[in-house]
Amino acid sequence: MSESAAMKALREEVCYANKMLPVAGLVTMHSGNASGYDPDSDLLVIKPSGMDYEAITPENLVAVRVSTGEVLTEGIRPSVDLPHHLFLYRNMPDVRGVIHTHSNYATAFAAVGRPVPLVLTAIADEFGAEIPCMPYTDNEGEHIGETILKFKNRAPSILLGNHGVFAWGKSPKSALKAAVMTEDVAKTVWLAMQIGTPKEIPAEEAEKWYDRYHNRYGQPGC
Amino acid sequence: MSESAAMKALREEVCYANKMLPVAGLVTMHSGNASGYDPDSDLLVIKPSGMDYEAITPENLVAVRVSTGEVLTEGIRPSVDLPHHLFLYRNMPDVRGVIHTHSNYATAFAAVGRPVPLVLTAIADEFGAEIPCMPYTDNEGEHIGETILKFKNRAPSILLGNHGVFAWGKSPKSALKAAVMTEDVAKTVWLAMQIGTPKEIPAEEAEKWYDRYHNRYGQPGC
Amino acid sequence: MSESAAMKALREEVCYANKMLPVAGLVTMHSGNASGYDPDSDLLVIKPSGMDYEAITPENLVAVRVSTGEVLTEGIRPSVDLPHHLFLYRNMPDVRGVIHTHSNYATAFAAVGRPVPLVLTAIADEFGAEIPCMPYTDNEGEHIGETILKFKNRAPSILLGNHGVFAWGKSPKSALKAAVMTEDVAKTVWLAMQIGTPKEIPAEEAEKWYDRYHNRYGQPGC
Amino acid sequence: MSESAAMKALREEVCYANKMLPVAGLVTMHSGNASGYDPDSDLLVIKPSGMDYEAITPENLVAVRVSTGEVLTEGIRPSVDLPHHLFLYRNMPDVRGVIHTHSNYATAFAAVGRPVPLVLTAIADEFGAEIPCMPYTDNEGEHIGETILKFKNRAPSILLGNHGVFAWGKSPKSALKAAVMTEDVAKTVWLAMQIGTPKEIPAEEAEKWYDRYHNRYGQPGC
Repeated sequence: MSESAAMKALREEVCYANKMLPVAGLVTMHSGNASGYDPDSDLLVIKPSGMDYEAITPENLVAVRVSTGEVLTEGIRPSVDLPHHLFLYRNMPDVRGVIHTHSNYATAFAAVGRPVPLVLTAIADEFGAEIPCMPYTDNEGEHIGETILKFKNRAPSILLGNHGVFAWGKSPKSALKAAVMTEDVAKTVWLAMQIGTPKEIPAEEAEKWYDRYHNRYGQPGC
Repeated sequence: MSESAAMKALREEVCYANKMLPVAGLVTMHSGNASGYDPDSDLLVIKPSGMDYEAITPENLVAVRVSTGEVLTEGIRPSVDLPHHLFLYRNMPDVRGVIHTHSNYATAFAAVGRPVPLVLTAIADEFGAEIPCMPYTDNEGEHIGETILKFKNRAPSILLGNHGVFAWGKSPKSALKAAVMTEDVAKTVWLAMQIGTPKEIPAEEAEKWYDRYHNRYGQPGC
Repeated sequence: MSESAAMKALREEVCYANKMLPVAGLVTMHSGNASGYDPDSDLLVIKPSGMDYEAITPENLVAVRVSTGEVLTEGIRPSVDLPHHLFLYRNMPDVRGVIHTHSNYATAFAAVGRPVPLVLTAIADEFGAEIPCMPYTDNEGEHIGETILKFKNRAPSILLGNHGVFAWGKSPKSALKAAVMTEDVAKTVWLAMQIGTPKEIPAEEAEKWYDRYHNRYGQPGC
Repeated sequence: MSESAAMKALREEVCYANKMLPVAGLVTMHSGNASGYDPDSDLLVIKPSGMDYEAITPENLVAVRVSTGEVLTEGIRPSVDLPHHLFLYRNMPDVRGVIHTHSNYATAFAAVGRPVPLVLTAIADEFGAEIPCMPYTDNEGEHIGETILKFKNRAPSILLGNHGVFAWGKSPKSALKAAVMTEDVAKTVWLAMQIGTPKEIPAEEAEKWYDRYHNRYGQPGC
């Protein structure tokens, strides 16, 4: 199969996102995976199952037809979390990158079934809402994808009860940022909860940060 | 615009301070910024908005006229926190470096609205007082700068309620040290608070450490 | 003594496992050791006592006859934990790699005599059960080995009261994974316990994850 | 001044010990120092005050005559903690290396005036006793040295109330090990205290570990 230039670029970006998971401290051994989606090709590429992050290359990522779920790469199994990635791309129109981790602080909130509350301007900036926590869900069929869809809010990530994190974005790099910031704010809020009760930022105040961050932050064209 | 040798040196130092933020573990993704001020030129230089730390160079820092707030660098937006940096340089006479972070332990104190109490000789050394915590303040106009000025004490840093840290010094490197030590002592005090109630160091004892550190410590001329 | 090709490969793998202990943050100074067992040669190789991890080579690992306990390498003492490694290889038929650490989070559970409860899908995946904690046991004779055998469950690791961790697997690399994941899940559960009471995953749900991980995860032949 | 070969070797070892302080995570900015003592020369060498660890070389360490306290190196000030190092060498006969840090977990115990209790076999191994905590002491004259002498036990380190850690040994490298292990066991015990009450190891049991570690551990001649 000859792939488009867009697919080649996507392979590079998904490879980078996977390799950054251990660098950013979000995964231990093989406990996370990143994928990216090219709607023009009807293809996603995703981490091979159980592969060391250092062994991942743009070429050995597994290509999958999104409309059918057909695995196109031979001889390499995709992540066992493929069904959840597929479901998210099929049901969340603008999503082009998805990341799954068991990052420690965020997963601690998930283990006790609590959201990460909107108590930091950094949470208002990036998420614009609390990071919700969905109930424990088993790994069969599309259960995880369906439950994500049901419990997510405007924030680009969600906690899975007793399990971990899914994060997403308009690109694999943007999904990576959401996954990294989910762990970072979970850590700070966890720390705060040990020395007091952090006070929620009211919705109208949160909007000032979300607006600044999404409309006036960063460089033109980025 | 042709810049003075002092400005060239300032650009080097501000670039270094920005690059040290992730190295010292004070920022995640882009959550912090450093600036430096040259009163002879009436200029500050500051991190570009949303730029990766590894992409920062002395040359792509954004120059701003301090008396007017005019941005002199074309095509690159300054940090959205520019108004707060400007306000501090205009209102704190000896300050030549300012740093903003969301470092985790210090921000945890900020999230619950508590100062870092003066319970360690290291706090007496560097800060000479508790590190105060100001109330939550929105990001409009000069609100943050004004509130810093109102709530700061002799310590070269302050916690911003539900938000993070501002630190400053007689140079960007000295502001960096204040930011690094703010997080370090916040961590130790946070740890102590989980296993007991740390006892405050009386003011007259604290003065012995502050005096030694500010008058007999370090190398001559440094 | 001329060694088989299998023994040479085992030396490489045991050397790697030892060197990964500090890289993975499981040991401080010399507080851990890895061994591997080749039943065809009736030999194990193990870390020399008190040696810096960076000084370990495949060649300076200490060879020991498993059936007799005879130390075959001259001039280099084996780890003082040798008797426990020997006991495990003699009494756990499929084990080919054993690792001992004092990794911080897991040892914290051991210090208070608590198991790591089955509250995360990652624990169901890798361990299929809680990670049990055996009572404090002294270092004489085969006491530690005997107590491990008495208190272990299906999980490939166990906590030693007031002491640390033993982990094992079908190879040194697999024992390393068990040791790394023991610390990782201990950390997440520890974090969760500070912000609530993590709910146990029922046995029948845990089985879904254990089955997927042991039968459908990873690459064919790995 | 022409120095002996022993002094040259001591400079190398003290330089190494100082440079390892940030590598081992025991210091932030300049918050720690190491020294070594050569009784034949009546000299110690110690870190220069406020110097970056990366700038330290064997040659720029400051030499001090131990019997008189005379500073022999011109143009470089010794650590402000010199009086405490001098006092320990003069009053603890076998000590040849001393290290001072503000390492976070150990200093947290110091901030609340608690010893690190003997609840881990690793503490029995290295320290043979709890790590005691002395009361807050000011920085004047020989107050700190005198209080260390009064409150220390057989363990090669002590916590200074509201302050930090002093550790020592028969060489700078051995003092470094004591400083590193003090922080490591403080961390594990701190973690344990958040999830229960760690049970003390009885003295007669602790002796089994201390004996094994001091008499049968490591390589011959080391």
